[in-house]
Amino acid sequence: MNIQVQTKVAVVGASGYAGEDLVRLLLNHPHADLAAVTSRQYAGQTIAQVFPRFSHFPKAKSLRFADPKAEIIAGQAEVVFLALPHGVAAEFAIPLLQHGCRVIDLSADFRVRNPTIYEEFYAHPHPAPELLNRSVYGLPEIYRPSIENASLIACPGCYPTSILLPVLPLIQAGLIDATRIIANSMSGVTGAGRKVEVDYLFAECNESLRPYGVPKHRHLSEMEQELSLTAGRTIRMQFSPHLVPVNRGIISTLCLTPSRKIEGDKASTEALMLQVQTAYQVAYGQSPFIRLLEGKALPDTKNVVGSNFIEIAWRADERTGNLIVMSAIDNITKGTSGQAIQCFNIACRYPETAGLL
Amino acid sequence: MNIQVQTKVAVVGASGYAGEDLVRLLLNHPHADLAAVTSRQYAGQTIAQVFPRFSHFPKAKSLRFADPKAEIIAGQAEVVFLALPHGVAAEFAIPLLQHGCRVIDLSADFRVRNPTIYEEFYAHPHPAPELLNRSVYGLPEIYRPSIENASLIACPGCYPTSILLPVLPLIQAGLIDATRIIANSMSGVTGAGRKVEVDYLFAECNESLRPYGVPKHRHLSEMEQELSLTAGRTIRMQFSPHLVPVNRGIISTLCLTPSRKIEGDKASTEALMLQVQTAYQVAYGQSPFIRLLEGKALPDTKNVVGSNFIEIAWRADERTGNLIVMSAIDNITKGTSGQAIQCFNIACRYPETAGLL
Amino acid sequence: MNIQVQTKVAVVGASGYAGEDLVRLLLNHPHADLAAVTSRQYAGQTIAQVFPRFSHFPKAKSLRFADPKAEIIAGQAEVVFLALPHGVAAEFAIPLLQHGCRVIDLSADFRVRNPTIYEEFYAHPHPAPELLNRSVYGLPEIYRPSIENASLIACPGCYPTSILLPVLPLIQAGLIDATRIIANSMSGVTGAGRKVEVDYLFAECNESLRPYGVPKHRHLSEMEQELSLTAGRTIRMQFSPHLVPVNRGIISTLCLTPSRKIEGDKASTEALMLQVQTAYQVAYGQSPFIRLLEGKALPDTKNVVGSNFIEIAWRADERTGNLIVMSAIDNITKGTSGQAIQCFNIACRYPETAGLL
Amino acid sequence: MNIQVQTKVAVVGASGYAGEDLVRLLLNHPHADLAAVTSRQYAGQTIAQVFPRFSHFPKAKSLRFADPKAEIIAGQAEVVFLALPHGVAAEFAIPLLQHGCRVIDLSADFRVRNPTIYEEFYAHPHPAPELLNRSVYGLPEIYRPSIENASLIACPGCYPTSILLPVLPLIQAGLIDATRIIANSMSGVTGAGRKVEVDYLFAECNESLRPYGVPKHRHLSEMEQELSLTAGRTIRMQFSPHLVPVNRGIISTLCLTPSRKIEGDKASTEALMLQVQTAYQVAYGQSPFIRLLEGKALPDTKNVVGSNFIEIAWRADERTGNLIVMSAIDNITKGTSGQAIQCFNIACRYPETAGLL
Repeated sequence: MNIQVQTKVAVVGASGYAGEDLVRLLLNHPHADLAAVTSRQYAGQTIAQVFPRFSHFPKAKSLRFADPKAEIIAGQAEVVFLALPHGVAAEFAIPLLQHGCRVIDLSADFRVRNPTIYEEFYAHPHPAPELLNRSVYGLPEIYRPSIENASLIACPGCYPTSILLPVLPLIQAGLIDATRIIANSMSGVTGAGRKVEVDYLFAECNESLRPYGVPKHRHLSEMEQELSLTAGRTIRMQFSPHLVPVNRGIISTLCLTPSRKIEGDKASTEALMLQVQTAYQVAYGQSPFIRLLEGKALPDTKNVVGSNFIEIAWRADERTGNLIVMSAIDNITKGTSGQAIQCFNIACRYPETAGLL
Repeated sequence: MNIQVQTKVAVVGASGYAGEDLVRLLLNHPHADLAAVTSRQYAGQTIAQVFPRFSHFPKAKSLRFADPKAEIIAGQAEVVFLALPHGVAAEFAIPLLQHGCRVIDLSADFRVRNPTIYEEFYAHPHPAPELLNRSVYGLPEIYRPSIENASLIACPGCYPTSILLPVLPLIQAGLIDATRIIANSMSGVTGAGRKVEVDYLFAECNESLRPYGVPKHRHLSEMEQELSLTAGRTIRMQFSPHLVPVNRGIISTLCLTPSRKIEGDKASTEALMLQVQTAYQVAYGQSPFIRLLEGKALPDTKNVVGSNFIEIAWRADERTGNLIVMSAIDNITKGTSGQAIQCFNIACRYPETAGLL
Repeated sequence: MNIQVQTKVAVVGASGYAGEDLVRLLLNHPHADLAAVTSRQYAGQTIAQVFPRFSHFPKAKSLRFADPKAEIIAGQAEVVFLALPHGVAAEFAIPLLQHGCRVIDLSADFRVRNPTIYEEFYAHPHPAPELLNRSVYGLPEIYRPSIENASLIACPGCYPTSILLPVLPLIQAGLIDATRIIANSMSGVTGAGRKVEVDYLFAECNESLRPYGVPKHRHLSEMEQELSLTAGRTIRMQFSPHLVPVNRGIISTLCLTPSRKIEGDKASTEALMLQVQTAYQVAYGQSPFIRLLEGKALPDTKNVVGSNFIEIAWRADERTGNLIVMSAIDNITKGTSGQAIQCFNIACRYPETAGLL
Repeated sequence: MNIQVQTKVAVVGASGYAGEDLVRLLLNHPHADLAAVTSRQYAGQTIAQVFPRFSHFPKAKSLRFADPKAEIIAGQAEVVFLALPHGVAAEFAIPLLQHGCRVIDLSADFRVRNPTIYEEFYAHPHPAPELLNRSVYGLPEIYRPSIENASLIACPGCYPTSILLPVLPLIQAGLIDATRIIANSMSGVTGAGRKVEVDYLFAECNESLRPYGVPKHRHLSEMEQELSLTAGRTIRMQFSPHLVPVNRGIISTLCLTPSRKIEGDKASTEALMLQVQTAYQVAYGQSPFIRLLEGKALPDTKNVVGSNFIEIAWRADERTGNLIVMSAIDNITKGTSGQAIQCFNIACRYPETAGLL
């Protein structure tokens, strides 16, 4: 594969929060040439008009939002980012792939390999089941080699990113019982997208804390798939998400059961602490966006907002025998658009951190 | 016992968030005559000067903060609320009780009956272990009869209130395994008190989500005590608190293991849903501040902020076999000051809701 | 006029923020019997279902939202609160008045007496110009006697309340040049109503400060009318509103030109400070919701949120010769629903503070 | 002057919000070599330990905070940024300048050229009046040529930046009456610095709006100095700042009196709109961080947060005859640290935008 200095890219559905953040990252990217952005709502307007904060980029003043038409986009870009609702994304991907584009999809459409499970969780038949085999789950820290050659990359959901990254190495290292994973998460309001519903109005969210989607949130489908693949058996997990009044950020707090009993045993507890650290270092020693916290530090979303990093900390609890693992990400950047750029970098053989530091 | 039309009360340490909210509730209380408020910091100033929002109460313009001196307060009030730091509260309670005052303590000093556990969690010897036998744990929905006759009431912590109220009836009804309780909570910043530390500055908390106190938060001591008393055996639980940017409010989300297996069994799952409802109705049918949510509703702190209510909802998860219970309270009102007033009402034989609706 | 123990009332359009706050205040009101609430969107549901925070009121569980039909409402209530959009409110008021109801309108429809100015600012012809003569501008501190006998009360807008209350007494006392009033205001997001638009989504408002509606906001029409009436000449003023990320609250900061020059004159400056105080005391000495700040205190919305109070402070600036007056209100309560209740109390000869303290 | 590829720099007082943002910008700066950071509080810790969000920079793991000692710093850096309290900064600057360092001071110490006015506003005698002649006011858009050769640069305050940039070109073009400037501003809470006081606790600021420092805020001293210099006569202005619950951002809304009457005259009003635009284009056509808003757009802090841009919009008001000008900046970046970097770039002959886009 030839490595180009720049790759022509397009963003389809660039008016939501994820699409806007993609535009931000791509305008700054040394190896991306943003050739097209689409949005039904803003068609005809320049990027600078819709997003004044980008107006100092020359391209923001010249590039106009277009109506999303797959054929036209296919002629403009080699790599196309889809920031569309599920269902719509898959239909859009078909012609793009036929025209030879590489597709990086931010929706849920190609994350779940089993169309029956997709339908169970997304309440409609999968729009392009024939493509599921081609897609690679775009969690770079886990699937880097497959992403390199993928033509269709399904970027993970924000919650799954915050949960799978801390959990998978522990399963791989045999340190936890994969059948007893309990995840509690809280997310900022951009997680709901730029959706115009009463529930997401300022005065409904501000000074409000609330669980939602309990007990069967859609992201369970992809999380259980990946857990099962790693564990080598069918896994179900408990997942309780909450909406909290910040713009960006997810904290996930996991209660895990160690494979070996540590309750009441100080030596085993301390040993587990080290084993977890080793497992993470083995898994993520070469991964530039994993920040393992040391000492007394615990994750804080304000340390990752706007960035592609994940913070991870862990505590073995001698009193209860459980292992508590905590993570923090920016739900938009590492959770969506930044991770998509990371996949783009890998797929195009650019440095993994290009445009992301 | 004679029921007086009004009872003279004092608030010691009235300048923190809990003390301020006590003042708010007592100024509005039909049966409380606020006779004294103390604060080292504000001594000499009127309530209206320190808290302009109360200045329309005639008493707010006449009553001045005094230096806290137990002997003087004992001559002014029959019931004394202590809104002091742990350690300090106990020392203050001793002379008040000797003078015949009833004491309603908002600190942690009299919650834990075992002084060894107190020292383990609070890092100093208990200042008045001889009083521990006299104190009643002031969770009205559970200890109403004992509160009626108590001279020393230890109001529960905010997190314990949000967790014990949903959990205890389920243990009592035999519906859950009390040894496997996993609680995740998030609290507004007033939970830290009016403490002047960098961590609680606006710009450190706003747009920040973070776990803290993991895995051994002080409130575990009282929660495990109460769980153990109800279960009839020694209980340890997992508890992970988080700080989130709202002024007031706690959400607790509990992952519980049903006593009878429901995994994969729809009928058992639905039966459990009903059994939980029955257990709550049996336990709380006469409790005016318990709001059991129906249908699809889930707790939201904005529905309880400023009030003494707790919202509770539950979901039996057929997929995982777990029972998820969620609660919402105002950490200051139901979590601290409102609950103290509720105890006051019970102890003085006033209607339990007096001054709280 | 007979004073009834209770008056039957209805709220038409009870699902917005103002309507919801009216319901809150009326459920707590000793002299109001809430007989009907309407909302197209929630028709058929109980108050408790739509607003769980009110569910402890017995009436919240029995009273259901109905479709808004004037004839039916007229048979149910003596006083009807209209919390409807402008234009719609006037059409609704006509049959209610014909049926003998007293109408307290929270919209802009009856605030401006000149239908030409109404049309200039609201961009459609006035729907009921024949009623304009009957309406009284419901600023109780100014129009108390007229409100007593009014059948149609037009409650002021939130910004006008925060600006007129501090300004009118100064004009009346001849202390300022009424032709040079410059008002800057900032409002919480509920000021926009429960309007489902992108601009009011959480992530669009949080961490955002922005002017809007500059230089010709609709509220100028009623403010200039009232200023002109008081000044006895046609007045135009400068008004710059801003949207800021709080749920509730307005700060208005007024730059006024004293009638007599104070620049560089310490004695005149101090004299003006006292004259302003006297003017407010004369105007508002009997008004229970005016809080004149003393000493170094300045208004803070957190001291008025949830209440019907207005805080007012002033500073004569010897350096510049200007008089700066600052006010704080809750845009929903004193700005809308609480003021409506205050009008209701006056109109029905109840104590002015009934249900508002 | 030789242009070096990199210049060695130090940040003295790097633990406040401005210092932290300087560190962020310098770690990213292509031409800055961060050689030293100081902080009494954090001495001995690495940047990564104190600010985990910077830990991916290799230097953040190696560079440790040192105690601030001028002689040592002078040996380490050619350019020293002082992020210290006023009074302290001046004393620190003296030895640095003697050792030949260039000093970029973020405090107020060298902004006001008249030590008597400094003492009037800062309540202590100026610590180094002999240096005042050497200092240049670091508003790059106005003083670019002087900054190029300055050894001592006094970076403007955040409010002055937001007010002077929109006002000065209008005075220079003769479009407004410089004696009648009325500025209302609102600032996020980082404007108060990382100061540990009750007033800046989360729960005191959140859901609170409040004026402060009215009518004689310290920033008046430098604003009136610069206005007077431009107008060629002594100017006093009205300035009313407010604290609002965002982390970062300032909106300033200016009410200005046009030199030629426009009231009631549509043609003059429209002409003024164009003249203002021309004045800004003349003044700022070559300034990369000025964003003049077109059409209906108004400033919004969320479009400038984290950046060195200022947004400016204006409206001539035919009804009142006033000119309203509105601006938005990030109080930390354009208001403090970013502007300091901009000065650094100019002083070292780097591209003005280096490290700032």
